[in-house]
Amino acid sequence: MKFTVEARDINSRAGVLQTNRGSIHTPAFMPVGTIGTVKAMSPDELKEIGAEIILSNTYHLYLRPGHEIIASLGGLHKFMNWERPVLTDSGGFQIFSLSALRKIEDDGVQFKSHLDGSMHFLGPKEAMEIQKALDSDIAMVLDDCTPYPSTHKYAMDSLFRTLQWAEQCKEFRNEGQALFGIVQGSLYEDLRKKSVEELVDIGFDGYAVGGLSVGEPKEEMHRLIRFTAPLLPADRPRYLMGIGDLGDALIAVDAGFDMFDCVMPTRNARNGTLFTSRGRVSIKREEFKADRGPLDPDCGCYTCRNFSRGYLRHLFMSREILSMRLNTIHNLYFYLNFFRNMRKSIIEGQFPEFRAKWEPIVS
Amino acid sequence: MKFTVEARDINSRAGVLQTNRGSIHTPAFMPVGTIGTVKAMSPDELKEIGAEIILSNTYHLYLRPGHEIIASLGGLHKFMNWERPVLTDSGGFQIFSLSALRKIEDDGVQFKSHLDGSMHFLGPKEAMEIQKALDSDIAMVLDDCTPYPSTHKYAMDSLFRTLQWAEQCKEFRNEGQALFGIVQGSLYEDLRKKSVEELVDIGFDGYAVGGLSVGEPKEEMHRLIRFTAPLLPADRPRYLMGIGDLGDALIAVDAGFDMFDCVMPTRNARNGTLFTSRGRVSIKREEFKADRGPLDPDCGCYTCRNFSRGYLRHLFMSREILSMRLNTIHNLYFYLNFFRNMRKSIIEGQFPEFRAKWEPIVS
Repeated sequence: MKFTVEARDINSRAGVLQTNRGSIHTPAFMPVGTIGTVKAMSPDELKEIGAEIILSNTYHLYLRPGHEIIASLGGLHKFMNWERPVLTDSGGFQIFSLSALRKIEDDGVQFKSHLDGSMHFLGPKEAMEIQKALDSDIAMVLDDCTPYPSTHKYAMDSLFRTLQWAEQCKEFRNEGQALFGIVQGSLYEDLRKKSVEELVDIGFDGYAVGGLSVGEPKEEMHRLIRFTAPLLPADRPRYLMGIGDLGDALIAVDAGFDMFDCVMPTRNARNGTLFTSRGRVSIKREEFKADRGPLDPDCGCYTCRNFSRGYLRHLFMSREILSMRLNTIHNLYFYLNFFRNMRKSIIEGQFPEFRAKWEPIVS
Repeated sequence: MKFTVEARDINSRAGVLQTNRGSIHTPAFMPVGTIGTVKAMSPDELKEIGAEIILSNTYHLYLRPGHEIIASLGGLHKFMNWERPVLTDSGGFQIFSLSALRKIEDDGVQFKSHLDGSMHFLGPKEAMEIQKALDSDIAMVLDDCTPYPSTHKYAMDSLFRTLQWAEQCKEFRNEGQALFGIVQGSLYEDLRKKSVEELVDIGFDGYAVGGLSVGEPKEEMHRLIRFTAPLLPADRPRYLMGIGDLGDALIAVDAGFDMFDCVMPTRNARNGTLFTSRGRVSIKREEFKADRGPLDPDCGCYTCRNFSRGYLRHLFMSREILSMRLNTIHNLYFYLNFFRNMRKSIIEGQFPEFRAKWEPIVS
């Protein structure tokens, strides 16, 4: 894996991340393919809207269908029929957010499946084994995602566990697979700084920031984004995990982050909330009933080129599958296009103007 | 609308139905687009698998979003972004099968919406007005779908009502829209014969047979199919309504029917039952867990070309939207391909061989 920063505009960066399965132009948004599919989308449609990489969830795939099944079917790319890059998380975050019971120990975490209640154990070794079986292009270290709020003492203990696991993940790293470290430390700047220093000592292909957008006030999140970005090595990709509100992304790109993922565009699509160049739109609104116009006149996606607001409202009210499809295509296209234009503005030295234009619309 | 029979093999016919929006090669299967979308499919995908015509349900569209809304959005074709032919039913069948309360009167039927309990009235005039607003290519007369079982007396009274409505529908027929009559008469051959004679006297662009597959034994259904087909005018398309089991279709094509519709391929797809060249397959079966092979090695559809049985099983077990999409694409492709091959066999004088080969697989 090779990362090149091609242009800078103050702190924001336009880069290229080269992998064996293709290049990713940064700042990049990664659609989330939770259980081996980006919900409602076919791989062909993902390519058509220009997705260069997707994220898949190790926790979900480990439980169903199981990483060994996926390995026997030729790995995640063959399984999904998606030949472009895939980043897999380590499974840690879902264990903390989904599993009913969990017990954190020094060598890993015991947890109960949210599907059938069965007991499982995930440690650094297991996290790397599973990600090897999935054969993703970028693997993430297992981390202990510190909850909000946490005392300084708790956050520090949790951070030391994360760092210990990170070291072990590095030890078990897989041939031909990039490995990213994850910065923790809750809202404490000293811990975030310590976290970065220790991770850089271990040495990773990229650095992610986790433990944000877990319930803290937005200003706190923005403070930590601005504090942490400049600490991260400039020659490696910087990935802000799980944050995908476009207003937050503008702040994070401004601070120097390169990679993003979030279920927001796909989940909102299924709930009928659509992102447009004039702000968010709830497609179920009565006023759209006989509206012949496209959802977003400035959008070039399949949905906006072919269907009226009236039809989209009808499909949503009738709970049709095509509603989820057309809405998801639009929201993901809008996101990917937003990131492409953001990248262009950085290259052209126009990022502050881009941000000033879009911040009031997307925030 | 023009109908030409191009080839015959004993009683089976290969024809072409020409409309202003394109030709339909018969025997033809019409996918069902209940509420303004063939469930889980985009119009582009329907074209890709070779659908030449779809059926839409007047009852559903009248209630939601309303035929006037659709008219104001440019008609059903524009609404759905489907430029090929559409056949609309009259709404009668759904009133009988879905609405909670109904009162049949000589001039039409009063019914209660299954959506919100509101009261509505549908007579021959209203049925034609709604179908005009939808701007379908082929409209159906309003008929009284005789339930099974019915006494001869009841079936006869019901038939007379159907014939009276048919006459009125003809009177109110819409410019540029073909109109098909519907044969009723329950399981009584004298009534079916009478029904055909009276309808032919009125004169329609095509003739449909209704009131079958409503609970009667299969042998009875087959008897009526064989009895009725030869009574119908040879120079007009013959449409067997709502029947789409492929075994039944073989019998009906053998008897001389040309057009078919059924929710079976789409509904079964969503429930994980898939049609293949080796018979029906339930995709959830444990044995498919790590199966690398395509669903049907003889199938050329998008699903079979790109995904394994193992992946299709996983999507189904995870209740993913992509499962319904890929399964529907496959089932509809299988159906349309089956009908294309059946047509070819008629042209080549090989229909008996085609039927002998497929009957044991699809029945």
